Amino acid sequence: MKFTINRDLLLLNLMNVSRALSTKAPMPILTGIKIEARNNCLFLTASNNEISIQSLIKDKRLLQIEEEGIIVVPGKYFIEIVRKTDSKDIDFSVFEENIVKILADRSNFSLNALDKDNYPFISFSDSDNVMKLDVGNLRQIIRKTTFATSLSESRVILTGVSFSTDGRKLEVVATDSFRLAKKFMFFENEYSINVVIPSKSLDELNKIFDDVDSIVEMHFSPTKVLFKYKNLLFQTRLIDGTFPNTSNLIPTDFLTSVKFNKNELISAIERASLFTTYDSSNIIKLTIHNDKTVEIDSTSNEIGTVKEELTPLECSKALDFQIAFSSKYLLEALKSFDSTEINLHFTGEIKPFIITGDYDVNLTQLILPVRVS
Amino acid sequence: MKFTINRDLLLLNLMNVSRALSTKAPMPILTGIKIEARNNCLFLTASNNEISIQSLIKDKRLLQIEEEGIIVVPGKYFIEIVRKTDSKDIDFSVFEENIVKILADRSNFSLNALDKDNYPFISFSDSDNVMKLDVGNLRQIIRKTTFATSLSESRVILTGVSFSTDGRKLEVVATDSFRLAKKFMFFENEYSINVVIPSKSLDELNKIFDDVDSIVEMHFSPTKVLFKYKNLLFQTRLIDGTFPNTSNLIPTDFLTSVKFNKNELISAIERASLFTTYDSSNIIKLTIHNDKTVEIDSTSNEIGTVKEELTPLECSKALDFQIAFSSKYLLEALKSFDSTEINLHFTGEIKPFIITGDYDVNLTQLILPVRVS
Repeated sequence: MKFTINRDLLLLNLMNVSRALSTKAPMPILTGIKIEARNNCLFLTASNNEISIQSLIKDKRLLQIEEEGIIVVPGKYFIEIVRKTDSKDIDFSVFEENIVKILADRSNFSLNALDKDNYPFISFSDSDNVMKLDVGNLRQIIRKTTFATSLSESRVILTGVSFSTDGRKLEVVATDSFRLAKKFMFFENEYSINVVIPSKSLDELNKIFDDVDSIVEMHFSPTKVLFKYKNLLFQTRLIDGTFPNTSNLIPTDFLTSVKFNKNELISAIERASLFTTYDSSNIIKLTIHNDKTVEIDSTSNEIGTVKEELTPLECSKALDFQIAFSSKYLLEALKSFDSTEINLHFTGEIKPFIITGDYDVNLTQLILPVRVS
Repeated sequence: MKFTINRDLLLLNLMNVSRALSTKAPMPILTGIKIEARNNCLFLTASNNEISIQSLIKDKRLLQIEEEGIIVVPGKYFIEIVRKTDSKDIDFSVFEENIVKILADRSNFSLNALDKDNYPFISFSDSDNVMKLDVGNLRQIIRKTTFATSLSESRVILTGVSFSTDGRKLEVVATDSFRLAKKFMFFENEYSINVVIPSKSLDELNKIFDDVDSIVEMHFSPTKVLFKYKNLLFQTRLIDGTFPNTSNLIPTDFLTSVKFNKNELISAIERASLFTTYDSSNIIKLTIHNDKTVEIDSTSNEIGTVKEELTPLECSKALDFQIAFSSKYLLEALKSFDSTEINLHFTGEIKPFIITGDYDVNLTQLILPVRVS
């Protein structure tokens, strides 16, 4: 096995597949990157059982394969070698079956390969059930939902994001049972999809995207979904189980709706939660007064109190109203909006409230309040 | 106690004194910042027993004191309040002896004060034994020496940097007994100084400096040294004990001297130490060949080997020579030089070698080699 490759091209592709590299050692072989040279192409593969990524390099001006072969190199060290090298090209060859020689200018590395016979067979599965999405749209979907998934493994299904279609409508939902993020999208074609994708996989996928204009293909199989993006295959397992039905959770009749400048509201909440963030309760109170002014306040017995006054841009109905909730949840929800003006819609002092943004059509964030004395 | 102060000015001064704030809680009162308003001045003080910092604010356009007083506020929270506030001015007042009210635009904070009677008396001690230095020079001295001090408390004296004078010459030395950094400076006046300053204190001091042209006064007392810089007093305790005599350690006769481009050498060593850094031995070998080429190599049995070839800019004498040492020590030493060309001077395969730079006059770095089979 022997090839010469452009250093920058190799590094870029290594960085991409490295997102699936295993850092823990339940299967030491998965700390390796599988390198396969055949048919004038180079395939780089990494997997951590949850995510598998394969990158295909075939640019003849930047890659010359002299001898085909397969080898598994220690991922971390190989990437560090390429990163620390500043030569234009890198020569890669294999001696005695398991010694990798890497030449770059006047640097000469010998790297012990891993046993390629231990590397698991990974099938990247095309499917007839394919959804095509602009990268830009998929990035938005991921950014606006994954933060609301559960971090706890006690209800594994809630660590994933639900993608389900009803004809030409895609509904993406994430919830940790205290809050919920829901995003719609409409397509020209009809689809039949109902899967739950691990939130972590989506976040890793999002880091690989480097543009907003390309098309991503999502290939759905019963237990996994394969994303095809540029020269990359990104496959993740699905979460088994039934996602809770959230269709009746989102209220549609409101006591009052209040419109804020988003950044003003974020700043006020960040200040109002200064003390409660440190004592980790995160609970703040929002009060609407009869004169349509809003007060946000919090108290930490040990540290002190904060009161923030705000004049909302609009308030559909003046009333005496008070609600308490996690500032962390509201901040994360607010930051998921691109709109500069956002609306809080309240249905009751101990009922969920929702957040919408004028320019974020088809996005709803919901938060459950907490009872406070 | 009541005053109004410009928000940016207050934040800058809080950030400076916060470098002495205690994060651990052997003395909870030291997590507080003491604020004193008197004679139209505001004094901010923080201390962690090792370092004490006091900042004096007296700009009448930016500070209006209505009522004098003393209070101790929880440092972390008070700084966060001021940081998160974007108003031009901040109103500060004390109610019921221990409730601090902070008003900034439409934000209203009540902060529980700490018990000021518990705050230790801190005397910032002027001295007749005063050395005056350009900030630029002191920053250089600190940057080029503190990294070589010991991190281990087993020989406490080596966790400090020795400042000693011989007439008009100041000698600054740091060593962890495996390497040594030595910097000279010459003055117009004679001084009589012989102290060991904690390395951490110097590093904190260095972070406060924001220019290179001001003058710093160092006031030496038997157990502490006080730095006066702009409106700041920075005091640190000294380390008790006798610093080892290092005057005979630095060799002056060399077998050969080799000149390198500094950045080329740094890159080669970073690559050569890729594998040994991970297995944390850090040991690399440097070989000078008869043809005046240089090879740097390292081996990790588990991972592999690296060989780097270099053609030095100059080599005073060709010889067959091999020396092994810690790549970490050499990298840190090299990065302390401003020169683009640096010299390695060797006296023997198991004898210390020194590093000098053409433009770094009066700076010597020394490294002890290790024996390898």
